Amino acid sequence: MQSLRDAGQPNIYPVNPKADVIDGLTAYARLTDIPGPVDHVISAIPAAYVLPMIEDAAAKGVRSIHLFTAGFAETGMADRLELQQQLKARAAELNIRLIGPNCMGLYVPDGRVSFAQQLPQESGPVAFFSQSGTNASDAAYNGAVRGLRFSKVVSFGNAIDISAAELLDYAASDLQTEIIGAYIEGMHDARDFFRSLRTAARSKPVAILKGGLLPSGSRATQSHTASLAGSGELWAAAARQANAVLVHNMQEMVDMLVGWRFRATPTGPRIGLVVGGGGVSVQGADDVEREGLELPALSDQTLSRLAEVTPVAGTGIRNPVDTMSLWDGRSLIPTLEAVAEDPNIDAIILQVGMNWGVDHFELENMNARRLMIASIAEAQARHQIALSVVVPMFFDHAAGRANAEMARMVSEAGLPLYYSIRDAARAMRRLLTWQTRRTERATP
Amino acid sequence: MQSLRDAGQPNIYPVNPKADVIDGLTAYARLTDIPGPVDHVISAIPAAYVLPMIEDAAAKGVRSIHLFTAGFAETGMADRLELQQQLKARAAELNIRLIGPNCMGLYVPDGRVSFAQQLPQESGPVAFFSQSGTNASDAAYNGAVRGLRFSKVVSFGNAIDISAAELLDYAASDLQTEIIGAYIEGMHDARDFFRSLRTAARSKPVAILKGGLLPSGSRATQSHTASLAGSGELWAAAARQANAVLVHNMQEMVDMLVGWRFRATPTGPRIGLVVGGGGVSVQGADDVEREGLELPALSDQTLSRLAEVTPVAGTGIRNPVDTMSLWDGRSLIPTLEAVAEDPNIDAIILQVGMNWGVDHFELENMNARRLMIASIAEAQARHQIALSVVVPMFFDHAAGRANAEMARMVSEAGLPLYYSIRDAARAMRRLLTWQTRRTERATP
Repeated sequence: MQSLRDAGQPNIYPVNPKADVIDGLTAYARLTDIPGPVDHVISAIPAAYVLPMIEDAAAKGVRSIHLFTAGFAETGMADRLELQQQLKARAAELNIRLIGPNCMGLYVPDGRVSFAQQLPQESGPVAFFSQSGTNASDAAYNGAVRGLRFSKVVSFGNAIDISAAELLDYAASDLQTEIIGAYIEGMHDARDFFRSLRTAARSKPVAILKGGLLPSGSRATQSHTASLAGSGELWAAAARQANAVLVHNMQEMVDMLVGWRFRATPTGPRIGLVVGGGGVSVQGADDVEREGLELPALSDQTLSRLAEVTPVAGTGIRNPVDTMSLWDGRSLIPTLEAVAEDPNIDAIILQVGMNWGVDHFELENMNARRLMIASIAEAQARHQIALSVVVPMFFDHAAGRANAEMARMVSEAGLPLYYSIRDAARAMRRLLTWQTRRTERATP
Repeated sequence: MQSLRDAGQPNIYPVNPKADVIDGLTAYARLTDIPGPVDHVISAIPAAYVLPMIEDAAAKGVRSIHLFTAGFAETGMADRLELQQQLKARAAELNIRLIGPNCMGLYVPDGRVSFAQQLPQESGPVAFFSQSGTNASDAAYNGAVRGLRFSKVVSFGNAIDISAAELLDYAASDLQTEIIGAYIEGMHDARDFFRSLRTAARSKPVAILKGGLLPSGSRATQSHTASLAGSGELWAAAARQANAVLVHNMQEMVDMLVGWRFRATPTGPRIGLVVGGGGVSVQGADDVEREGLELPALSDQTLSRLAEVTPVAGTGIRNPVDTMSLWDGRSLIPTLEAVAEDPNIDAIILQVGMNWGVDHFELENMNARRLMIASIAEAQARHQIALSVVVPMFFDHAAGRANAEMARMVSEAGLPLYYSIRDAARAMRRLLTWQTRRTERATP
């Protein structure tokens, strides 16, 4: 794999006793046969061979090993737990740091290390740490599609050496990292973890997803990363104390990271909701209030301004603003500006994709949509108002593809992208609570 | 439009005083200029011209008019409310039935009438009625993608004549309709509505979405279809009494219709959860329990059977079953059969698409996936067990497209398709509650 000393092209040395060449690269029978220095080892060999392998790694001066290898404590088998303990002890004696076992390891774009081919090669300000490889991949892929770029993503599995606490400490001081997310199943030292969480959350926004809060999920964490899960109340209290945001699933996790990254934090709870379609506006209004935000009536002045650019029939402007201007680039910007300048409004949620398929949204109209989305980004920047953009996603048909394309434009324009009004409202409410606590605590 | 007497090709007569030909069809200046008989009128003229138009319609012997035309009571303007009342009174005098105003009207595949081009031309057993045109379209499009076909979809807007109660009565006795959904914003006669709801729900499964249960949503219903919304508690009680299922948004609506249509109703609350990926299995377990279902431990016999087809490393078989067999058609069916035959299990939730992109799911492997999904459908039929299939959907990248394609296969195989484990669990819990009440009430 990649030399960690040198961010150029990595030297990769495949090691396999039965092959001379792997994927066009010269293979070596043992680690100790490799001619040059080795900085980092990725182990995908069976668990039974890991102990001898780390002796070889030590002989080569290796300082870190990522154990993709699974089949340790998470199997629930006594002999495999014992093997894991031996491994941990021996690595410590040899001064080798372990990531894992039972994990996907590193996605560090600037180090040119990745656990999957299709992830972006550019880096960015978001760090994500996950005991689960699936969830690490989920954050990286679904975050990337929504415009996030990452400093470091680490999948760390059973966490027998490098722990969530250590990773949070690292992210807190990493200059490249501005926003932190983590998926945790359990920890060996809860006090350490919560201390690191408080430290990290003091300087940077942190979102935490805790797996296994319910009995079956807890049984699943044992099968998964041999972790003991904790109680929901304890976690909620600890997160509140640290002012970290506790989310309930991976989509909510990415929703928070996107909100911080693309400035969706509102200055207050009063939302202007702009949509096209009556059913969507009614449902959206219910959803915004259900998530704990407000949908105040707009001022008379705003209503007059909206009336100038909104036909009377088939619309509604009393917030939600159910407008045809979504189909007409010229009146959309005046609509958004009128809402943004209303003294009763702190933030805007704008749904630009439909829940279904209409001709307006066919791919051929995409150039017009691109201009429209650029105008939205300009209006948002000019008014310095938090604005979340909703593009619903659904199984494939023409409008589904059109929405996917529109979603790409929204994230490329640097706007926070959400799947539904409810998701946007939930994220904005959490961002507001987080911001409010942060301000309170900064006040002496 | 379509002759309702004759299900062959409809005769369509465009009416417009300023055109001779519209879309290649001869246009007429007035309704009364049309040479042949007219069964049904679709009005898209401005509100001010509707009253004279219905006089012409009466002269032509028209019995039903769909008023796409908006701009009546929903504007909140006194003169437009007055106009709506005049219209209602005059249509009643002329013995003309009105759909709307302010709505999308009819999608009746066997009558060859549709409010959108891309909807399936085949019909099926699901009826959906909606005051909102957006929501009618949402049900039709997103239902179609998930395998639903419709008997009648009616968007009926302000409902000044044909009402939700009358539509429910119709669906209850319609031989083509087996499953009913409705989106309601308000009604003029609540006792009528609840009587019709009870009657319909006695013979057929009914799901209801009520818009505007919260204050802002309620304000939006006034802008939207000039309806007065009711309280959440009242609706919950009325739905429970009728054994209709009250859902909270349009996706949950389609989730219910899909569950009834494709036999996802479990015989009890005990779920076997089969997924690939540790983080997903932990989250899925939490989600199943959060929705009020159970995830019991599997029997020793089942565990032995699963152990035969599941590698030890990187998996978990204690329910959730986190298995590699999703990538291996040969072991997937033995896995499903072992879980289906476990005496502790009433139903299965199976997630087949990943939350992110991996090579396994590239489109070129789709033939293998197709065979796998066909095998799942066979196993489900053989064991007569409720089985919901989850394919997560997300913004476009390779795996998103692959999942969309896989989703299509799942619905074509006649399996109930859901977007997430949580959605599947919520629908199955509601289906179970519905089935339990139904059985209790059928018992003397």
